[in-house]
Amino acid sequence: MADSPRDGIQLAVSTVIFALREHPDTGLSAVWIPLVRRIKEPFLDRWALPGGWVTEPESLADAAARNLLETTGVQPSYLEQLYAFGDVERSTSSRVVSIVYWALVRADQAEQATDGDNVRWFPADHLPELAFDHNVIIEYALWRLRTKVEYSRIAHALLGETFTLTELRNVHEAILRKPLDPANFRRQVEGSLQPTDAVVSGGRHRPPRLYRYNANTELVDNGPLSHEKTGSTRVIS
Amino acid sequence: MADSPRDGIQLAVSTVIFALREHPDTGLSAVWIPLVRRIKEPFLDRWALPGGWVTEPESLADAAARNLLETTGVQPSYLEQLYAFGDVERSTSSRVVSIVYWALVRADQAEQATDGDNVRWFPADHLPELAFDHNVIIEYALWRLRTKVEYSRIAHALLGETFTLTELRNVHEAILRKPLDPANFRRQVEGSLQPTDAVVSGGRHRPPRLYRYNANTELVDNGPLSHEKTGSTRVIS
Repeated sequence: MADSPRDGIQLAVSTVIFALREHPDTGLSAVWIPLVRRIKEPFLDRWALPGGWVTEPESLADAAARNLLETTGVQPSYLEQLYAFGDVERSTSSRVVSIVYWALVRADQAEQATDGDNVRWFPADHLPELAFDHNVIIEYALWRLRTKVEYSRIAHALLGETFTLTELRNVHEAILRKPLDPANFRRQVEGSLQPTDAVVSGGRHRPPRLYRYNANTELVDNGPLSHEKTGSTRVIS
Repeated sequence: MADSPRDGIQLAVSTVIFALREHPDTGLSAVWIPLVRRIKEPFLDRWALPGGWVTEPESLADAAARNLLETTGVQPSYLEQLYAFGDVERSTSSRVVSIVYWALVRADQAEQATDGDNVRWFPADHLPELAFDHNVIIEYALWRLRTKVEYSRIAHALLGETFTLTELRNVHEAILRKPLDPANFRRQVEGSLQPTDAVVSGGRHRPPRLYRYNANTELVDNGPLSHEKTGSTRVIS
């Protein structure tokens, strides 16, 4: 075992941020990701995941939240560690190990986050060739998102406290990228939902009812870590 | 964003190694973990997960595999990244971020790995108070192991290529720490198994048949990463 750590490895955090917006081709709700244009080498001018270095007085999750707010201006409603990427050759300059988080942002938050010179939102199925191994990272994050939406109530973090069944189905359809049968979908999710007394306002003849998740529906499957002070998973609102 | 990384954060890897051995109290198969006695501060003389620093020319998984071989002498049959632990106060000396892996070791390998002065195997339910946050890390790794054994064929990495239904049930019972009904268990797993032409040798009247996993049973659920060069998940044999 080496007696002391090497100085040459740099520790970064990056975050894959997901929000739902209308897809330009289909007009349907789709998953979008904000990217940041690199303003220095390596990969000058390429798009990349928002991120930065971990500073000494902050936890990894704090570093991820700070970096994504600084670079994209968005506040996530959900933040979870995805994976640590540490291949030797993943950066062309010095060795960088990136601890990657993924985050969900509500539609109202995402709409406020407009594109800037060096920040742009892309549909997840129309990404450019990114810096480093960031295309691979996003592919993995999308897989994790699709897996988790099947068995946890993470759609909550995209919708807010209450929502109609149609809104919830639209979230699942956007993430899974396929249409779902409304009656089957209702049967699959109704065990995890409870109807509220409220309906959507607007004076329609049969306004749709608003639902919320049962409190006992598991949010995510992080097991012991969900309850630890590590703050690995956060539901900000 | 900070322009450059801080020098004060050290990057380590540690590994939670699981193998099955007889429990001293019950005589049943149980999960055991090898630990290493610390020979320096902080936490001098406390038991800790095997690990060490990441050196520059090796990937994170390579560093994990090297460190666990050097410290415990075992070769894992399965190795997967668990989580990056990076709380500010988790080490009492300098700031250390630990990327933790978990590994499975086959019984025949584990039996060769005898205890030494500074390496000892412990039943997972009889651990001492460990250095750093290693008790929390092991709790999380055990939860991941229990979750994964329910839907993937990781038991393979503890058993070898072929096994009887009783051997497979014993692995699940050891990990889940509860007895399972043999008939129910058989129904649950038989879709993922195929019988071989072989039976257990030894001249019994009705020797039990040997099974193997179907090739199309998912090994683990790492999605795109299973196939990437990151080498995040390894099945060594």
